[in-house]
Parts: sequence; C-alpha cells; structure tokens
Amino acid sequence: MMRIHGGDWAAYESEYGKEPLDFSANVSPLGMPEGVRRAICRAAEGADRYPDPSCRALRQALSARLGLPDAQILCGNGASDLIWRAAAALGPGRALLPVPSFGEYEAALAANGWEIVFHPCGPELCPDASLLSAITPQTGLLFLCQPGNPAGTLLSPALLRRVLERCRETGCRLILDECFLDLTEDPAAYSLLDALPAHPELLILRAFTKLYGMAGVRLGFALSSDPALLEAISTAGQPWAVSSLAQAAGIAALAETDYVEAVRSLIAAERPRLAEGLAALGLRVVPGRANFLLFHGAAGLDEALAARGILIRSCASYRGLGAGWYRCAVRTREENDRLLSALREVLS
Amino acid sequence: MMRIHGGDWAAYESEYGKEPLDFSANVSPLGMPEGVRRAICRAAEGADRYPDPSCRALRQALSARLGLPDAQILCGNGASDLIWRAAAALGPGRALLPVPSFGEYEAALAANGWEIVFHPCGPELCPDASLLSAITPQTGLLFLCQPGNPAGTLLSPALLRRVLERCRETGCRLILDECFLDLTEDPAAYSLLDALPAHPELLILRAFTKLYGMAGVRLGFALSSDPALLEAISTAGQPWAVSSLAQAAGIAALAETDYVEAVRSLIAAERPRLAEGLAALGLRVVPGRANFLLFHGAAGLDEALAARGILIRSCASYRGLGAGWYRCAVRTREENDRLLSALREVLS
Repeated sequence: MMRIHGGDWAAYESEYGKEPLDFSANVSPLGMPEGVRRAICRAAEGADRYPDPSCRALRQALSARLGLPDAQILCGNGASDLIWRAAAALGPGRALLPVPSFGEYEAALAANGWEIVFHPCGPELCPDASLLSAITPQTGLLFLCQPGNPAGTLLSPALLRRVLERCRETGCRLILDECFLDLTEDPAAYSLLDALPAHPELLILRAFTKLYGMAGVRLGFALSSDPALLEAISTAGQPWAVSSLAQAAGIAALAETDYVEAVRSLIAAERPRLAEGLAALGLRVVPGRANFLLFHGAAGLDEALAARGILIRSCASYRGLGAGWYRCAVRTREENDRLLSALREVLS
Repeated sequence: MMRIHGGDWAAYESEYGKEPLDFSANVSPLGMPEGVRRAICRAAEGADRYPDPSCRALRQALSARLGLPDAQILCGNGASDLIWRAAAALGPGRALLPVPSFGEYEAALAANGWEIVFHPCGPELCPDASLLSAITPQTGLLFLCQPGNPAGTLLSPALLRRVLERCRETGCRLILDECFLDLTEDPAAYSLLDALPAHPELLILRAFTKLYGMAGVRLGFALSSDPALLEAISTAGQPWAVSSLAQAAGIAALAETDYVEAVRSLIAAERPRLAEGLAALGLRVVPGRANFLLFHGAAGLDEALAARGILIRSCASYRGLGAGWYRCAVRTREENDRLLSALREVLS
C-alpha cells in the first residue's frame, strides 16, 4: 500500500473501512473554530460568483494583523500552491535544499527543471553553520523551513540572519517556510518577518491550514517586499486559485485569538509529555519544537499502529532519513495517551 | 482601470462602492443549488482534515454519472487548474491555438515555454475545416473549446471528429474544453465523451463551476483513457488542490438534476431573446449557442454600463478581437431586460 502523504485518511479508510485517529497530519488538534465554520457557511451563499482573484478583503485583514502593506501579501490555495508557483516563476536554475525536508519543495523544483543541491542536515536534523558555505553565487534559490518538517527543529535566530545575509551577498533568493511557526512557543523570536523590508530576496510562506484546523479549506500566503517577485509568482498559475470560501474562512480565522492561544498552550504542554513518553518506550526522539515530533524505532511501527486504528507518518521515503523514521502530530492529552498506549502494545 | 478577467466583481465594488449586476461571468443565473450549499456547510465540520488528494468519493460519483472508470477522471481546483497543469506536464513543444479563445490557454502555454501557433477563426469566430491542415506532425498540442469562449459557437460534430482523427494521425494531443457544453441545448451531440476509449490522445475538460453556480468553490475535472497522461497532469502540481468543501459540493451537485434542467431551459429560452434584443439595438451579435453572447458595438459600452451598475466583459484584449467587442452572460428574463434597457439608454 502506498501512503505517500501525511493526512491521507481517505487511503486509510478505503483500506481499513473506518476513520483513523490521525497523527500523520500536523494540524491543530482542536478542530476548526466555530467562527470559521460559520463564515464558510455564510460565504457559500455568494459562492456562485467567481472568487476575488486579488483576495482584497483577506489581504487587507492580513495587512492589519501583520503590519505590512497589502501589496506585500499574496494568497494561495494552501502554501503548497505558492511553493509550486514560486518554483515555476523563479526558475529554473540551481537550488539548495537542506534535507530531510518537506517533499513538495523537491517535487516542485524537479518538475520545473531546477538542478537541486541537497544539503544533509547531519544527526541533529537541523541546518547548522555549514549551510552558509553551501550558499554560493551559483545558488539561485534556497528553501528553508522554520521549524523544519519533518524534524520540527528551529534554526537559531542568529544563524537564520547569517543565512539571510549570505543570500543577500550571493544574490540567492530565500524562501522561508514559516507554516508551522505559529504553533511553536515564541514565533516572533524565530521569524524573519521583521527582515522583509530590507530584504527583497526573502519570501516568507505561511499557512492558515495548520494553526486554525482548516487543512481541507486550503489557504496559505506569501510575504515579500519585492512586488515584482509576488507578481511573477501570482501569474505562474490560474487567477482564481483561492476559493471564496477560503477567503472568508481566513478573514474569520484572524479574529480567533483565543483559539490560537489555546492551541499554542496545548502544544506547549503536550509536546514535552509526548516526547518523554516516546523516549520512555525506547524510541529515539528528535528534540523538535513544533506541533509534531520525529522519532526513530523499529521498521513497521506505522503498519502496526494502522491495524490499531492510528495513523502516523512513515518518513522512510524522506531523502536523508530511511526505514524506522516516523513523524507524529502532537494532539490532545487523551489522544496522545492513546498513541503511547498503542505503541507500548506494539513494542512489547 | 484594468479589468482583465470576467467576473471581477471585487474590482468593480472597490471602484464603484456597490455590487454590480454581473453579466461578465458566465455562470448559472439561478445561484448555487440549496443542496450544494448545505453540503458545503456539512463538509466544513470535517475540513480540519486535509482533503482526500485522490478525490475518491467524488470520482466515484462522477464515474457513475458519466459511465467511465474512475481511473479516467482527474479532479482539479477548477478547470483552470487543470489547464495549467496540462500545459506544464505535456510541454514544452509546439501548440496550436484557435483564436479568439479563453485567455488561460495562452497564458498557461506561454508560461510553460510552448511555441504557440495561433489559428485565426475568421469572421464566423468558429474554427472551420482550415483547422485540419493547421494540425501538422510538428503540432504537439491543440486546445479547442466546445462551445468556444468568448464566441459561444459550436463546432459541428462531423468537423470535431475529423479534427480528432487528424490529431490521432499526426500524434497531436487534443485538449477539448467542454466546460460550457452542459449549458447548451444538446450537449451529447456536440461532445467527444464517447470517443475517449478509442482516443488516448484526447483530454476532455469539464467544470462544475458554471453549470451549478459554484464558481467561488472551484471544481473542474479532466477525462482521459490514458492513465499515464492523467498521472502526469496530477503530479504537475500540489496533491491537495481540490478542497474538501469542493469535493463535497461536487458530489451534492451531481444529484441536482432538476436544477440542471431548469438552467438549461432558461438559457434556451433567454439566449435567442437576448440576442434579438441586442441585434435590435444595432449591435452585431455572433450566433453563439452557449450561456453567453459575443457582440460588437461602439467602444466604451462596458464603461458606460458599469456606470449604470452593470458589468459586461470587454473582449478588447482578446487576441483576434479588439475594441468594441463584448461578451455578456445570458441571465434571467428580468436581468436580461435590465441589460437591454441600460444598453438602449447608453446607445441613444
């Protein structure tokens, strides 16, 4: 059986005939906020019209929230849409890709004819200072993920800024994927948001899908102080990529500040507990800081858990990892305990 | 002011401060069916999960409706998503494009490095038999639209099949866009659906957005008997392009047979009436058969109507047309009368 992506509950259901407890997708464990659900229902009333291709109202709401001009914001059909458009718009050329990393970077680069230089992250599974010398004047584009996916590790703010400087010096574009950053404990400290005005070579990606439990709705956005860059990415695909429903959902989500606080507190409390629980079972757990954890154990754990109704993400297919690597989301206390019990059963 | 796309009501609202009566987008004038709206609200409950990347349930429903194996169906984020993916997956090479035609064909081909040979349609604004000799062994891909957009004209079934044969002989892919065909009076007679099994070089595009009044939801699909072709198109972009909401909406829409009958009858009754009304005002009306009409008159009619609260599509920017060309949707009797009155005012 192929289970290539995280969150492929439908493949599970067609094989096992029931809904899994899904730790394979890294979305908020609190479900979609009620205010977002209501906004989608309301938006359906007017969804016989085409969506606003410019996402004007959503970009204005984001502009107010982020303190950036709306001309520096481009919305997409999930951050993945923007990854593919950027790879199409900016290339081809030579790209640098720390590995392991989110598979869509490589897929989008390869499909668009880029030459890819892979930069192994070493046993810490987080890019270190050796990344700096890997960025050369021949490097056209660097994809970085903060925190990393699947490892969940955070680059230090100091190293991140040295990487950005190195990109500026060598004329390399930096696409920094901050899609999971809002689910870590101190997002502002690890973001490059404040570097945008001075760094037109920087593109930041963010998503609504994970933080607000709306992965099925599809909504992400890109930030850049270079209007020509955003225009190029925008025109590298259809004009109506972001549905009216997603635009309305995004506006409603931005009002859900209590929800965000609750998700962040839950992850902050549960991640160390889950990590300890996994380590206590003899698994090697990467010290990630995101709403998911990467760990290593015997081969076949994913299949054994699937038979017990639980889906985790096998990372065997990730470049730089291999058999025995798995990623699981951090969910509610009760759900995490179910995962730990099932693993205890499987491992004993 | 730039108003590049039809249906850009948001640009209108930001300029005029009110909602227009929109004849610029070719969607069903009856609004979204209530059953589709309810399905979207229900689907929002589970939309914290990622969408099924394979759209299994929707493809099964389409398979039952169309009498095709579900392996011959690929869903997309609107038909435009599939146009862009196909242009990326199949090229580059030399493409043949009758003009005028839907602007996304040229945009997607150009962005993906295709050499484009334009085939002018002549004063009838419908491809004729001269298209056959334009298809050469060097032609890698032909985009055809049945009925044409913006002209609304239909290729005869006989010519369409000669074109398909010619494509087979020369080794040319044919992408036949049937997105508006269900809004004409006898869709089956003008479709190539029955030619799919014998013609792996044929890809048919269809959309839910126009027929079911769900343009804001984004949902289209492609049909082909060549599984490798669908796989290539599918992997030329992100896996989660079709939202959970769109998948649920599509399944619900397929049950709306009375709605489809009502839309088709309305268009069949109103299109000739609107065409006569436009002609009576001295405008040159192309004898289209779709849920929209292309006509020619003085320059500036679109701006004059916009000032009266009505949006039509200027076709001045279409390759093969020019100033004075406009497209308007066929809407309800009362709305069509409002358009005709406003035009009468403007022209007198």
